[in-house]
Amino acid sequence: MSKALRIIPLGGLGEVGKNMMLFEYDDQCLIVDAGIMFPEHDMWGVDVVIPDYAYLKSRAANVCGIVITHGHEDHIGGLPYLIGGILPLDTPIYGTQLTCGLIQARLSEYPNLSGAALNRIAPGASIAVGPFDVEFLSITHSIPDGVGLAISTDLGTVIHTGDFKFDYTPVRGGGPGFARLGELGASGVLALMSDSTGAERTGYTPSEAVIEPAFDAIFRNASGRIIVATFASLLSRVQQVIDAADHHERVVALAGYSMVKTVDIARRLGHLEVPPDTLIELNEALRLPDDRVAIITTGSQGQPEAALARMAEGTHRQIEIRPGDTIVLASTPIPGNEEEVARLINKLIRRGADVIYPPLANVHVSGHASQEEQKLMLALTKPKFFIPVHGELRHLHAHARLARQMGIPNENILVIENGAIVELTPDAANVVGQVASANVFVDGTVVGDLGPTVMGEREMLSHDGFVVAVVPISAATGEVAGKPDLISRGFIYIPENRQILERAAERALDDLRSSGARRRQGIIERTQGFLSRYFYEETGRKPMVVAVVSQV
Amino acid sequence: MSKALRIIPLGGLGEVGKNMMLFEYDDQCLIVDAGIMFPEHDMWGVDVVIPDYAYLKSRAANVCGIVITHGHEDHIGGLPYLIGGILPLDTPIYGTQLTCGLIQARLSEYPNLSGAALNRIAPGASIAVGPFDVEFLSITHSIPDGVGLAISTDLGTVIHTGDFKFDYTPVRGGGPGFARLGELGASGVLALMSDSTGAERTGYTPSEAVIEPAFDAIFRNASGRIIVATFASLLSRVQQVIDAADHHERVVALAGYSMVKTVDIARRLGHLEVPPDTLIELNEALRLPDDRVAIITTGSQGQPEAALARMAEGTHRQIEIRPGDTIVLASTPIPGNEEEVARLINKLIRRGADVIYPPLANVHVSGHASQEEQKLMLALTKPKFFIPVHGELRHLHAHARLARQMGIPNENILVIENGAIVELTPDAANVVGQVASANVFVDGTVVGDLGPTVMGEREMLSHDGFVVAVVPISAATGEVAGKPDLISRGFIYIPENRQILERAAERALDDLRSSGARRRQGIIERTQGFLSRYFYEETGRKPMVVAVVSQV
Repeated sequence: MSKALRIIPLGGLGEVGKNMMLFEYDDQCLIVDAGIMFPEHDMWGVDVVIPDYAYLKSRAANVCGIVITHGHEDHIGGLPYLIGGILPLDTPIYGTQLTCGLIQARLSEYPNLSGAALNRIAPGASIAVGPFDVEFLSITHSIPDGVGLAISTDLGTVIHTGDFKFDYTPVRGGGPGFARLGELGASGVLALMSDSTGAERTGYTPSEAVIEPAFDAIFRNASGRIIVATFASLLSRVQQVIDAADHHERVVALAGYSMVKTVDIARRLGHLEVPPDTLIELNEALRLPDDRVAIITTGSQGQPEAALARMAEGTHRQIEIRPGDTIVLASTPIPGNEEEVARLINKLIRRGADVIYPPLANVHVSGHASQEEQKLMLALTKPKFFIPVHGELRHLHAHARLARQMGIPNENILVIENGAIVELTPDAANVVGQVASANVFVDGTVVGDLGPTVMGEREMLSHDGFVVAVVPISAATGEVAGKPDLISRGFIYIPENRQILERAAERALDDLRSSGARRRQGIIERTQGFLSRYFYEETGRKPMVVAVVSQV
Repeated sequence: MSKALRIIPLGGLGEVGKNMMLFEYDDQCLIVDAGIMFPEHDMWGVDVVIPDYAYLKSRAANVCGIVITHGHEDHIGGLPYLIGGILPLDTPIYGTQLTCGLIQARLSEYPNLSGAALNRIAPGASIAVGPFDVEFLSITHSIPDGVGLAISTDLGTVIHTGDFKFDYTPVRGGGPGFARLGELGASGVLALMSDSTGAERTGYTPSEAVIEPAFDAIFRNASGRIIVATFASLLSRVQQVIDAADHHERVVALAGYSMVKTVDIARRLGHLEVPPDTLIELNEALRLPDDRVAIITTGSQGQPEAALARMAEGTHRQIEIRPGDTIVLASTPIPGNEEEVARLINKLIRRGADVIYPPLANVHVSGHASQEEQKLMLALTKPKFFIPVHGELRHLHAHARLARQMGIPNENILVIENGAIVELTPDAANVVGQVASANVFVDGTVVGDLGPTVMGEREMLSHDGFVVAVVPISAATGEVAGKPDLISRGFIYIPENRQILERAAERALDDLRSSGARRRQGIIERTQGFLSRYFYEETGRKPMVVAVVSQV
């Protein structure tokens, strides 16, 4: 291997989620992040999406470590699919204290992964991983204890921002390490890889602190229970609700498995400050007067299995929404979730609750840098080469435009997507190849079998259902022996339309007889063709038609 | 019937789309608008959604007319399902010139509806429809020639705004009739029904005029072709592109069936001003130098069948996207379309185009009033009663809040949803009952059979596909005669996983034999139960399992 640093994004570039980046130097591989992505609407039946690990598998013997920037699912969720399989279970994993706590909780769902090699590193510290010197840089994001990385080799320093915003007044912690970023910039940064998620947004992302007055007003005005829904991992928002409740003399209870779990971890590790007697059990809270209670729950994205959705449906075991309740959705819909969130709001209103959500009140801010912060990151670090990361192609392009405005020559900016192999030397950055990088779909316990064939079938079935025709043929003569038996699901509402199937069976038999089809395959094809046309003519629908023969 | 005005929304209240409102007085019915709604993601295979016309059908003999406020699909698209079936073909339909032109184009797709009774009414004019006096009020919206309505009976005047914004400087036409609204308000308005779509948005919706500088900059800077995608019905945007093209010495060509059709109608009726030789055929335009050409096309919402999507996929017959092209998406995603629009943008960028869309440039504004305009409408009309219309429940609630701020007593504000029967007298407004108002799904040529059963089946099939098991039983003994034949689609990728089905068939036979099941129904249930469990254990997936027996 020549003396060049290779950078290979396996996920998170050209799409949002499943962030994963590979650094190769001196024949050694460093992995940064191991995320999953949640399926889009046309990824039928998919539970989660992971990167294609094929290239990584071929390099498994050379992997010296995995560094995780922060504890969100789109950065840690791939670990269970990666270690103890693609990579040895004892591959060292490095993260900050809270990040490791969340990884541990995630891995604890897999008994065989209890031996994972987690290493807690403090923000500001540096570690040697193979030929890489990795410094953990303090940044701010919507989860505490997140870091950026300064990855140094003989060739120079590459800064990877992780997910970040520049929050001067975070809810907890010391804020971003501006000075250290500037120091690195002054001493020379070979390349910057910076979070592009917010690249379409002008200006600055507001500080988490701007939320406080909004919560204060809500707590001051509400006369009944207050139920705040947010992401379990958005611990600064959880802290703000706890603070507001404490200030307004309400107790706080938690609803929702992931909220209870995450708050427990964060509290144990000192990333949440809870005044004595403020946090109590849900059942206990529900016995207190309504105006003494605040509940923090999950489900702000309209996820049907989450606590808030069950409250909206009236199926939550403990909490029944009623007039007087104030419900706060302290998040904005992730693209693709708009319909679900809108319905959730409508259902809660229909139960008489007062529902508060952005933009009606300032109860959420993004965790990602906007354009002016992205420019500040470029200005502090003064990189020779720039690679926008984390985002769809549109975000990477918008970010690249900012870098050009900041004076980085166009030929020093690399807009790349998953799978690109970048070769970086002190003088040049080039794309020199491509590794497999398609989405790998996990559905149930089978990984990777879902491609265009099965997806196409599921899409077709979702539109018009299916009809299976069992055609009886004579074992003696091979001739069609009677009307096909038709079974349908998802096609028409049978009780009202049974005659459509009955007539179809008769007509299919007529057609088979008139065709004189005898061979098994001929009968199958004739039946499928006839019924497909017949159903389309009769109903305008295109169910999937599958014919089989049955010897009688 | 007592001397009260009844108002019954059949669509568009508590949801977005399929707007339709019924006014009943003196035993006569006036219909306002007849819209359709486009399906949401979980309305599997649905083409369009129409209101439940059952109540209307029961009142058909008493319908004196249909008034349409403007030519958008969510206000006119229901007419083909309504007239010549639910209502007599000669039911009088009233609309402005452009509205009638668009209705006629829509109805021309149905040969049996050519006899529809369209009546062109000018904005500002009044007509008598049964006991109703209906005045067409000039308003502005994202389509020209839209109107609000002042509907008067002996009891007083009800103002229905239609879809509106207050645009002081519309691209064409005279703008909203503020003075007439004020005059009506001064003489006493019994009730206001006002567009709630923008009720979550503070401030004022910008005028269409703010778009012009953005287009001017785009046309000044582009060196290649300019392709602008927008709604065919957004004729003011089309006019702006034509103006910018004319100014910058480009010709304009149209791509996409609905764009060509709508522009033709609007031009014929004088609602588009096209300088001589500016609008030319697409094929002709494509032979000119790139920097002489602008193309207006459909598909800004990512609709897969639209022209822009085909360009992005590389399957458009005439236009191949290439570096140098500037593509403008002059719309924002309708909620639910975000994923599709994001992918469209990414695909176009991947083909080398420069893609411009909000918020990167100011190329779109909403056609609906924001909060300050909604307040102005309340202030001008000074209604005694207020009924927020057009919007999800969340929008109606937000609009009601504004009305309370404007001093309308809470008991005079009716937040109602589809199907509510409002009885209005000079002194009171009450909900007195409810008519059937569920969504009716159109899929193909069958209307109304899709309920929870078929939808549930389609949802299940979309997740995990199906397996049909054909179990051979002996005609002589009724006993199971061999392994079931298993057919699956959308479940697993067969070439890699055939053995899963093969083993399942063997195990199912073992299970059937050990169970001693003999009755037909017993065999079917046993097989379905066993295979469902087996597949879940083996794959973690839950395909729909349907068993049938076949006598051999």
